Amino acid sequence: MTNRIDRKASSQDELICRLAEEAADLLQWLAQFGAGQGGGVTRLLYTSAWQQAQAALAEKLLSIGLTPYFDDAGNLFGRLAGMYEGVIVTGSHVDTVTHGGRYDGAYGIVAGVLALAYLKEKFGPPLRSIEVVSFAEEEGSRFPLTFWGSGNIIGRYKTQEPPHLQDAEGITLAEAMHAAGFGQGKALDDRQPYSPSSWSAFIELHIEQGSVLEREGRQIGIVQGIVGQRRFTFEVKGEANHAGTTPMSYRKDALCGASEMILAIRDAAVAYGDPMVATVGRLEANPGVSNVVAGSATFTLDVRHPQVEALDEFCSALMEQLKLIAGKSGLSISGSPWMDGAPAMMSAELTDAARQICCSRGFSSRDMYSGAGHDAQLLAPVCPTAMLFVPSRGGISHSPEEYTKPEELAAGIVVLIDLLYLLAYKGETK
Amino acid sequence: MTNRIDRKASSQDELICRLAEEAADLLQWLAQFGAGQGGGVTRLLYTSAWQQAQAALAEKLLSIGLTPYFDDAGNLFGRLAGMYEGVIVTGSHVDTVTHGGRYDGAYGIVAGVLALAYLKEKFGPPLRSIEVVSFAEEEGSRFPLTFWGSGNIIGRYKTQEPPHLQDAEGITLAEAMHAAGFGQGKALDDRQPYSPSSWSAFIELHIEQGSVLEREGRQIGIVQGIVGQRRFTFEVKGEANHAGTTPMSYRKDALCGASEMILAIRDAAVAYGDPMVATVGRLEANPGVSNVVAGSATFTLDVRHPQVEALDEFCSALMEQLKLIAGKSGLSISGSPWMDGAPAMMSAELTDAARQICCSRGFSSRDMYSGAGHDAQLLAPVCPTAMLFVPSRGGISHSPEEYTKPEELAAGIVVLIDLLYLLAYKGETK
Repeated sequence: MTNRIDRKASSQDELICRLAEEAADLLQWLAQFGAGQGGGVTRLLYTSAWQQAQAALAEKLLSIGLTPYFDDAGNLFGRLAGMYEGVIVTGSHVDTVTHGGRYDGAYGIVAGVLALAYLKEKFGPPLRSIEVVSFAEEEGSRFPLTFWGSGNIIGRYKTQEPPHLQDAEGITLAEAMHAAGFGQGKALDDRQPYSPSSWSAFIELHIEQGSVLEREGRQIGIVQGIVGQRRFTFEVKGEANHAGTTPMSYRKDALCGASEMILAIRDAAVAYGDPMVATVGRLEANPGVSNVVAGSATFTLDVRHPQVEALDEFCSALMEQLKLIAGKSGLSISGSPWMDGAPAMMSAELTDAARQICCSRGFSSRDMYSGAGHDAQLLAPVCPTAMLFVPSRGGISHSPEEYTKPEELAAGIVVLIDLLYLLAYKGETK
Repeated sequence: MTNRIDRKASSQDELICRLAEEAADLLQWLAQFGAGQGGGVTRLLYTSAWQQAQAALAEKLLSIGLTPYFDDAGNLFGRLAGMYEGVIVTGSHVDTVTHGGRYDGAYGIVAGVLALAYLKEKFGPPLRSIEVVSFAEEEGSRFPLTFWGSGNIIGRYKTQEPPHLQDAEGITLAEAMHAAGFGQGKALDDRQPYSPSSWSAFIELHIEQGSVLEREGRQIGIVQGIVGQRRFTFEVKGEANHAGTTPMSYRKDALCGASEMILAIRDAAVAYGDPMVATVGRLEANPGVSNVVAGSATFTLDVRHPQVEALDEFCSALMEQLKLIAGKSGLSISGSPWMDGAPAMMSAELTDAARQICCSRGFSSRDMYSGAGHDAQLLAPVCPTAMLFVPSRGGISHSPEEYTKPEELAAGIVVLIDLLYLLAYKGETK
C-alpha cells in the first residue's frame, strides 16, 4: 500500500525517468546535424547542417502533432493551438559555435518539444496557444552579428535589410539567407507568427555555462536577470627599449604597466563583490620579442553586472584608476568601450512561479544572474520572460565537452511543463 | 702667440674635426650597400648587398695602402704590416638587421679604417701589425645563428661544417655561403689570417645602443664586460572559463597570474640593483579572446648581468618566487632556459689604458657594462679584448633612427688611434 506522498514521488520519478531518456535521445538526434570530430557540433547559420537541422525539427514538430512554420529569417515555430487568445512561447537557438557542444541552445528547443508533447498527450489542447521556437541564430559564429534569430522577431533586424556582413569565405549574410530559402519578405507558408508584443510569456531553458549549480549541488537556476556587458580595448604606451642596454630605472615598460592594470581590474571586481565580474582575456605586447622592453601593450576588458548603475560606477572608477597607474609609470593609456549591452530583467511573476514549482516539486534551486547573453534578453523588454538554468558539468560550454546529466535535463523540463501548464491551461482567459 | 696647451687643444680639435667629417662620409658611403626606405639599411649575410659592401670595403682598404684579404667565412681583413711579430686587430660586423641603421657594426669598421689610415699616414709602418676586420655576420638576421663571422675565427663554427639552417626563403647557410664564393675550405688568396690566439689585442668600437652616455652627457663608455644572458619561456596554466558566468572567486586566471609574475620579476631586478636587468618582452594569453578567462599564458624572460654568480643567484630565487605566486592562485608554472650566454670580461690592462687616454685627451668617460652581445665577447676568452662605446641618440639601435653625432664618432676614433699607437708603435718587441 503506497500513501499519497509515495504515489506522488513515484509518479514524479517516472516522469523524470521518461524525460531524461527522451531528452538525451533527442539531443543526440539533433547533434547528428553538423556532427564533427570528438562529439563536436558545428551548425552555423544557413549552412547545410543548419538547414538539415531546422528541416528535421519541423518534421519532428509535425510528428508530435504541432503545426510547424518558419518566419522569413528562418526561425522555426511549432504551434500547439489553444482554444482562446494568447500565446506562450518557449525555446532557444539551433545554431552553435564552431566545434561546439550538443547542449547550448539545443537543450532549450528539445525541452520545449518534449514539454509540448507531454502536455498535449496528457491534457489535450490548451486554453492559450503554446509554441516552441528554434531561433535561427544567436552565437554570431558565422557572421560577426549575434541574435539574428530573436533580433528579427523583435524588430532589431529586418530580413529585407540585412546588415552587409561577410563570413570567413566572403559570402554575405544576404547571400547565405537567400541560398537557404529565406529573406523572401514573407513567411514560407500562410501562418504568420504572433507579434512578440502579444506573447503572454517567453521561457528559455539553457545550460548554465558556469559551475555555480554544480558546485552547490543544485538542480535549477532561476535567472533573475541577464547581466549588462561592457567591453573595452585599451592601449598602454611606453617606450620600446633594448632589454640589455636599458637599466631598470630608465624603462617605460608598457607590459609592466598593463600587468599592474590587470591586477587592479581583478582586485576592483573582487572588492565590488558578486555578481560583478571583470575580465582581461586578451593581451598583446609590442613589438613582442624577448629582448625588447615592450613599447606598447593592448588589452581587452569585459565587465558584467545586472545593474546599469553598478556598471557605470565601477567602470568610471576603474578608468580613473587605470589612468593613475599609467601616470605614475610615465605611460599613457587610451581606449574606449566598443560594446555596451544593457542588462535585462526577467519577469518577477514568472520567476516567483518557477521558484514555487521547484519548491513543490522538491527541486533544489537558487536565484542567479546570467553572466552570458541569451535570446531571452531580447524578449525581456517586449514580453514577460523567464529563464531557467540546469547544471553544466565543469561549467564548460562552447566545447564538445559540454555535458548535463539526463536527470538534470529532465528536472528543468518538468519545471517548464509546470510553468506552461500554469500559463496555458489554467486561469482566466480573455 | 699660442701656448703649448692651446696648441695641443687646437691640434686635437683639428683631428676631431677631420675624423668627424671622414667618419660621417664613410658611414654614408657604406650605407649605400643595402640602402632601403627612410634611410634604413638591410645587409644580410651573403646577400648581394652584403657582397657589394665587403667588395667595396676591400677596395677601400687597398686604396689606403692596407693589404685586404678574406678568410673562408667571408670575414674581411685589412693588414697594416708591422716590422716585428704580433698583431692588433680592431673592427666590428658588416651585416645589419633587416631595416637597421647605418651605425651598428659599421661604426667599428669605419673607425678601424680611419684609425689605420691616420696612423699609417702619420707614423708609417708600426712595430707590430695592425688589422682592421669586417666580420661577416653578428646579428643572426638571415639565419637563426649569431656570430657566424667571429665564431669562425675562434673555431666555434667551421665553414666546412656549417650548421644546417635555412633562411626565410629556404636557402641553406651552406648554399648562401657557396653562392657568395666562400666556404671553399681555403682563403681566397694566399694570405692566411693570424690565429686569434696570437692576437695581441682585439678592440671593438660600437654605438652604445642604450641611453646612459647620452643622459649623462659623456663621450666614451669603457666597457668592463659584456653581460651574460639567460632567456626562458614560461607557461602558466590555469582554467579557461566563461567571462560572464564564472564568479571572480571561482577563477584560475592564468593572465592574472602572469601579471603578478611580471611585476615580481621587475621588482626583483630593481631590488637586486644595477646592472641587473630582467625583461618580459612577449606575453600571450590563451585562448586570447575578450570574453574568456585565460586558461594559460606564455611569456618570455630575459635576464642579464656581467657575473655568472649573480645570474645564478637571481634566477634561482626568481624561479622559487614564480612558483609561489602560481601556487597561491591555484595555477601551475613550467619553463626552462633556452639560452645561457656566459658573461665576457674585457682586459683590465686595455680598459685601464683606454681610461687613461680619455683622461689625457679630456674626454668624459665612464666604465659600464654592455647589456647587448658583441663580437668582442667571442674574442675576450681568446685574447686581450677591449670595447669602447659612443653615445646612441635616444638609445635607439636596429632602426633607421640610429644616430650618433659626427664629433662623438670622432672622439671614439681618437681613443682607438691612441690605443693602437700604444699597442703597435710603442714598447718592446718580441
